[in-house]
Amino acid sequence: MSKLIGNLIFGQSGGPTSVINASAAGVFTEALKSDCIPKVYGAAYGIRGILEEKFYDITQEDPKELELLKTTPSSALGSVRYKLADPDVDDTDYKRILEVFKKYDIRYFFYNGGNDSMDTCNKISKYMQKAGYECRVMGVPKTIDNDLYGTDHCPGYASAAKYVATATMEVYHDARVYDTPMVCVLEVMGRNAGWLTAATALAAYKGAGPDLIYLPELVFDMDKFIADCKKVYENNNHKLLVAVSEGVKDKNGKYISEYGSDLASSKDSFGHAQLGGTGAVLANVLKKELGCKTRAIEFSLLQRCAAHCASKTDVEEAFTAGQKAVQYAVEGITDHMVAYERTMKNGKYFCNYVLVNLSEVANTEKKIPREWITPDGTGLTQEFIDYALPLIEGESSPPIEDGLPRFAKLKKVLATK
Amino acid sequence: MSKLIGNLIFGQSGGPTSVINASAAGVFTEALKSDCIPKVYGAAYGIRGILEEKFYDITQEDPKELELLKTTPSSALGSVRYKLADPDVDDTDYKRILEVFKKYDIRYFFYNGGNDSMDTCNKISKYMQKAGYECRVMGVPKTIDNDLYGTDHCPGYASAAKYVATATMEVYHDARVYDTPMVCVLEVMGRNAGWLTAATALAAYKGAGPDLIYLPELVFDMDKFIADCKKVYENNNHKLLVAVSEGVKDKNGKYISEYGSDLASSKDSFGHAQLGGTGAVLANVLKKELGCKTRAIEFSLLQRCAAHCASKTDVEEAFTAGQKAVQYAVEGITDHMVAYERTMKNGKYFCNYVLVNLSEVANTEKKIPREWITPDGTGLTQEFIDYALPLIEGESSPPIEDGLPRFAKLKKVLATK
Repeated sequence: MSKLIGNLIFGQSGGPTSVINASAAGVFTEALKSDCIPKVYGAAYGIRGILEEKFYDITQEDPKELELLKTTPSSALGSVRYKLADPDVDDTDYKRILEVFKKYDIRYFFYNGGNDSMDTCNKISKYMQKAGYECRVMGVPKTIDNDLYGTDHCPGYASAAKYVATATMEVYHDARVYDTPMVCVLEVMGRNAGWLTAATALAAYKGAGPDLIYLPELVFDMDKFIADCKKVYENNNHKLLVAVSEGVKDKNGKYISEYGSDLASSKDSFGHAQLGGTGAVLANVLKKELGCKTRAIEFSLLQRCAAHCASKTDVEEAFTAGQKAVQYAVEGITDHMVAYERTMKNGKYFCNYVLVNLSEVANTEKKIPREWITPDGTGLTQEFIDYALPLIEGESSPPIEDGLPRFAKLKKVLATK
Repeated sequence: MSKLIGNLIFGQSGGPTSVINASAAGVFTEALKSDCIPKVYGAAYGIRGILEEKFYDITQEDPKELELLKTTPSSALGSVRYKLADPDVDDTDYKRILEVFKKYDIRYFFYNGGNDSMDTCNKISKYMQKAGYECRVMGVPKTIDNDLYGTDHCPGYASAAKYVATATMEVYHDARVYDTPMVCVLEVMGRNAGWLTAATALAAYKGAGPDLIYLPELVFDMDKFIADCKKVYENNNHKLLVAVSEGVKDKNGKYISEYGSDLASSKDSFGHAQLGGTGAVLANVLKKELGCKTRAIEFSLLQRCAAHCASKTDVEEAFTAGQKAVQYAVEGITDHMVAYERTMKNGKYFCNYVLVNLSEVANTEKKIPREWITPDGTGLTQEFIDYALPLIEGESSPPIEDGLPRFAKLKKVLATK
């Protein structure tokens, strides 16, 4: 394959995770070593940074701080939710991107994100090909939702799963401290795929998890939910722990979280429209149905940024995915996303870094297979446990100073225009 | 002092913490070594276990599991919120306790808890003295609220503070990932004392904390709050992170959390009365006032049970407090609580284990001194930072199996009646 000399730009996109910066560290450290890549840039706020010519000169960063990115949560460069138009309808953005790539001699464009970001990456890749501009375009996967097609799992998922399972075990213990009725609903992120909510089954596997788990893969039936809960509550000494995906919907496709907004829509001043998440709505249903105090706990942002409780496996894989993207591109690969392939040898888990076409991965969602959900729809089978356990192996946390995490501090020197 | 031979019973009371079981481990392991204490019992659900003669025979537990109590959150024996009557008004419970103590030859009674529990402990101590029944009664402090009188700080506080500060730093990073307006309100536990909410100032000290902090020590003025927030929002590129104690009240003594219930009180079916905590109410106020999307995050139970992110200093002190209670009692001390006294030698923090009269500590709340709160009432001074930093030193987490915490599993063999 031909050797391509030119600069690299890397952007982060979509919701942050505990390990998105680990992939950045992998890309940056590998690219800085390569003699094909004179300059390494980080786009400020993803594709917007490219459109606005705002990117950071990574060569100016302290190598120690780049290393710290491995254990720094969130998105150090800034992220964006920006959907590119169909280039056949409106190619303004694409022309601008090409202009910027030419100006800065960008020959390596890497984009880190989930479904939408891979769509962006794919569109840019195809446009550059059509325009005859040689640029190696690579996707680096990322999403706590674990819903990317073509990869065994996604960077960011395992750390969020480890945190969710750990916190669920802790809440399990806390919530049954009194000899009184206890009903608690845990709300976990995931609009369309229930992978992260399913992680609470790991806590149950360890004997300290939810009695019932509701995933967005199945239609949510309020009557069945109430009946399920009553049964556990009665048979289980008035203790009930439920985990639910934020994205569960009824048979009409209506989000359960909207049940709360509807009721509050007549309110103004301190209006409650935003208050009732899925967990809160269900906790209130159970309060009425079971006649006891109930509690909703929303893991909220904590679940996607808990770098203090990350999976070492996840951090290392995310870092390696970044490195591999650079290695593959320098070797001549373009128009692909780096993906994980699982192999098991003598019962031991190994991860291989393979390639998947960007056009295949763009906008395709991978959900939990029905057969991994128990027939009654309220739990996960051993197949899921076996799938998830190797991913959460190993403990990663940032270096500690004064008892608190020391996260990376980038200088963020803007590249001269 | 006279040598007293007899059995020991230990009870846990009030809200759980990450280290209440560490104190149990300290009491149990020390008591099991003592030749003055033939039998060691753990009361099921605190004082209720004594009244109902339900207690566990700790000699039957595996020493390895007792050791694991050090890193197991919540209350392994079960806890209770039970307020004993004034014995001059109704001495039924006291008579019953005396009866049980005599039956089981209880000569050492230890109670682990906060203000109310120390009141219980004090009342029992005085009653036993009056009844002429020789029993050494010791309080072991515990509360994430850090509001016990007579001790520099309370077991459980530091671990909750470390978790709150860590999670705040992580949320800080997560919440500013997009180049869009961001307003987030963190709600922290603490009805009357703001110590735990103040821990978010540690995150600010590290450059990744809230812009504004509101404590229950000061009257909450909604107009001032809105003005404070607008100022930060405008001057800070539309980013605003607020931390607030669940217990803030307006000048009429009304909880801010009640502002939400009022508005929702007309609702029934999925009623919102319980939905709006302080954080949610304030996030909705800011949504209206600033005209942008806002988010409330409630640390909820997570903050008091996050053993995976505990302070090693806290765990070791809590364990030692339990040990010291046994040692003091065997030496002849009674009617006291073990307390922490801080000494600084060459800038290094040391903790001494001293004694404080139960009658002094019962029902007295210790709040944050006004001079540790900044004059404008929205931050903490360096005195608070210097106070808190040594307490959160060192990382403690449970042993890990399969990537998840391995908590203690007690056999809980009930003592034969």
